[in-house]
Amino acid sequence: MIDSVLAQADMGLAAALDRLGELIRIPSVSADAIHDTDCAKAATWLAQTLRELHFECSIHETGGKPIVLGRRATPGNKRSVLFYGHYDVQPAEPLALWNNDPFAPAFGVNARGGRTIVGRGSADDKGQLLTFIEACRAWLSATGALPVDVTMIFEGAEETGSAFLADFIAAHRSEVGADIALICDTNMWDPATPAIVTSLRGLVQAELTVRAAVMDLHSGVYGGAAENAIHVLTRLLAAMKDERNRITIPHFYDGVPVVAAAVRDQWPKLDFTAETFLGSVGLAQSAGEIGRHLIEQTQFQPTFDVNGIYGGYTGTGTKTIIPAEATAKLSFRLVGKQDPAEILLQLGAFIAERLPADCSFHLEPQDLTPAATVDPACSGLDVARRALSEEWGREPVMIGSGGSIPVVAMFKDLLGIETVLTGFGLDDDRIHSPNEKYDVVSFQKGIRSWARFLGLYGETMRS
Amino acid sequence: MIDSVLAQADMGLAAALDRLGELIRIPSVSADAIHDTDCAKAATWLAQTLRELHFECSIHETGGKPIVLGRRATPGNKRSVLFYGHYDVQPAEPLALWNNDPFAPAFGVNARGGRTIVGRGSADDKGQLLTFIEACRAWLSATGALPVDVTMIFEGAEETGSAFLADFIAAHRSEVGADIALICDTNMWDPATPAIVTSLRGLVQAELTVRAAVMDLHSGVYGGAAENAIHVLTRLLAAMKDERNRITIPHFYDGVPVVAAAVRDQWPKLDFTAETFLGSVGLAQSAGEIGRHLIEQTQFQPTFDVNGIYGGYTGTGTKTIIPAEATAKLSFRLVGKQDPAEILLQLGAFIAERLPADCSFHLEPQDLTPAATVDPACSGLDVARRALSEEWGREPVMIGSGGSIPVVAMFKDLLGIETVLTGFGLDDDRIHSPNEKYDVVSFQKGIRSWARFLGLYGETMRS
Repeated sequence: MIDSVLAQADMGLAAALDRLGELIRIPSVSADAIHDTDCAKAATWLAQTLRELHFECSIHETGGKPIVLGRRATPGNKRSVLFYGHYDVQPAEPLALWNNDPFAPAFGVNARGGRTIVGRGSADDKGQLLTFIEACRAWLSATGALPVDVTMIFEGAEETGSAFLADFIAAHRSEVGADIALICDTNMWDPATPAIVTSLRGLVQAELTVRAAVMDLHSGVYGGAAENAIHVLTRLLAAMKDERNRITIPHFYDGVPVVAAAVRDQWPKLDFTAETFLGSVGLAQSAGEIGRHLIEQTQFQPTFDVNGIYGGYTGTGTKTIIPAEATAKLSFRLVGKQDPAEILLQLGAFIAERLPADCSFHLEPQDLTPAATVDPACSGLDVARRALSEEWGREPVMIGSGGSIPVVAMFKDLLGIETVLTGFGLDDDRIHSPNEKYDVVSFQKGIRSWARFLGLYGETMRS
Repeated sequence: MIDSVLAQADMGLAAALDRLGELIRIPSVSADAIHDTDCAKAATWLAQTLRELHFECSIHETGGKPIVLGRRATPGNKRSVLFYGHYDVQPAEPLALWNNDPFAPAFGVNARGGRTIVGRGSADDKGQLLTFIEACRAWLSATGALPVDVTMIFEGAEETGSAFLADFIAAHRSEVGADIALICDTNMWDPATPAIVTSLRGLVQAELTVRAAVMDLHSGVYGGAAENAIHVLTRLLAAMKDERNRITIPHFYDGVPVVAAAVRDQWPKLDFTAETFLGSVGLAQSAGEIGRHLIEQTQFQPTFDVNGIYGGYTGTGTKTIIPAEATAKLSFRLVGKQDPAEILLQLGAFIAERLPADCSFHLEPQDLTPAATVDPACSGLDVARRALSEEWGREPVMIGSGGSIPVVAMFKDLLGIETVLTGFGLDDDRIHSPNEKYDVVSFQKGIRSWARFLGLYGETMRS
């Protein structure tokens, strides 16, 4: 049976790519309210697509972007899955660096000579989520039915913190319940080797604004005396890491687990070095904490990054002012039991302690997500391992991801289910950057991988 | 005779304010090429105004903005003056903070209940330069002649470094020659006390761009390992001052003179404290070098200010990137014999030394002006003191200015003449900030002050 499903998937590839192009063409950027109608359009597109596949489908308004819920149950199925994806995308700016309009996808070629589809969201997460929908389509085309009951939930605020998702899941517990959750929003180990993510970092995001004088001042008149908001901000940011690149906020590392010796011992054997990992993006050395392995730095340790900064005169030419205000967008990736709310509190205290007495600051929290881990005994993990091995001809690597997918903790806390995270993105996909792409091979073999998973999972017995 | 000139000045005030309004209405922002035609318009406006006053007048194209040259000589005059002003203005952004369109001037009221004219350039330098033109007009209306030969030069690139001015002055030496130069682009000591500036700080301005990876990276994938251009930039900026707020660039203080004990002894007697100077702009304490008097910090010591900063995602909401590039606009005010070119060189070496090996930087110099001082024995200084005393009923204070007026050094070097710097701006004029204003009293008594100066200077003998 699986062979005819896979044959259907391959025959339908061109049409599936057309559908991916349609979805990319909707500029559903969640960070900017100007794209609210585009987000609604993407939700409608997904709902229509599911209805074509005879899913019962509904669009739910939230305080933020609409959530799409689709469900197709078949009498006799032993198993049920809940697939989660997000239709929102990152802002496409800076537009000048794109080779094509980010929302008018074009085919390209990757470094390996393979075909790609280039556009904002092609990988994150439109291409990835469509691999699952297209796998369902292949099953329906080939057999007229799905081997497991499938619920799909698509949200439009993943890139901005998923503010209304937990409330939605809590309110729709009975409709979204399943044996296991599935997410396709992560990367392969390398272009030939699939991966399953078994731990995810958490996230604290906050915007810090520092204010000094009541207005911008003339640097010739006040220079040498008046505090400069940019100086205050840069001093604060520089103080947040010490000379070993360790984050200096008190209690920041509370709850960071020690990596087991067995795990640590594997690292030297893996070909994961500054050269292999950072070389392709033009860097040569790790800027992480001195004395830790690169794998620990990127997968097992918390991080701090300033994602954006602005203040004073940023136009063409010069303006001799002492800026009154400066802002930085901060983000911290968390691991283990680090507490996002406590870190935000400690951050505020850290800033308050160092701030000149006549300056003020505002810290606007934007995202507070704890880290999450997947139970290694969960049955879906084993099925995913088999499905991916069969499709790719290689055992998938079990990895910790540096990224944050808040919904994993929600599924565990609110529905009591584990999540299988696998995806077909690649390190050179440039997600969140100009010229984001998704390999056509990722798309095709991603669809085939999910088709295999559905078949195999439908045959497992509930424990 | 002076009484009828002053009476003419007072009678003509309303018409003079109308003319100031006309000039402010031309948005001659030199920092942005989009305003090039406006700069040309302002130059034409000034030339026409001088021609109405029977000046021989010409507009000269340069590699930058046009320079206006006007001259009116009268047989029998014993003395000649060269008046310099600039018709270009600072950018008006952020526009949202203005109470009226910055280029549609409106009358306002100052903190003392007096009338003001509000608009970009109302003080810096359109209002100030017009005090001199209107003083000439008053003399011509009252007497039909000017008591000294007057040359005027107006440039349009003062706010962006006066790049083509020195070449112009050198090429037109014979036409612009005079006994003394006059500039009206500085402030009063307080609203009741005039001031003459006898020293000016120099200026080094440069834009620093730091580059890390070849593109913005996803902070979930690369966080903990990849260098962040904003972190590099903020660390560099924070390192440029030590914990005593002293600038740490090697040899930066070379050439900074020690202030004479006699000068230093006067400071405690003056009512110039953090409270009086910084209180009105919402600050309470000096951010200057610890252990130095506020007057030394603002008038006798060099300074460092970041005028603007930007990098990464600066739009609405969040974007979890590790920025590849970040930029800061730096400015240093210089004193004494500090060498702008040497400081730029040392700054570059300071950055290169601290930059991570896989990052790069670009330092784009925008302005390199040495500090300048006025010879205390120059005859114009004494005449200015008498003219200001008569008009304001108080002796003017002789001060060092924190600001930089590059043309003073040019007049000394190229023409061999000293410059009398006096002006009627006030600390609350908000120059370079939203809601810039010029007091109507400043304008009126400024015109009268120059009228008195012209009369008195015309009576002096050449030494």
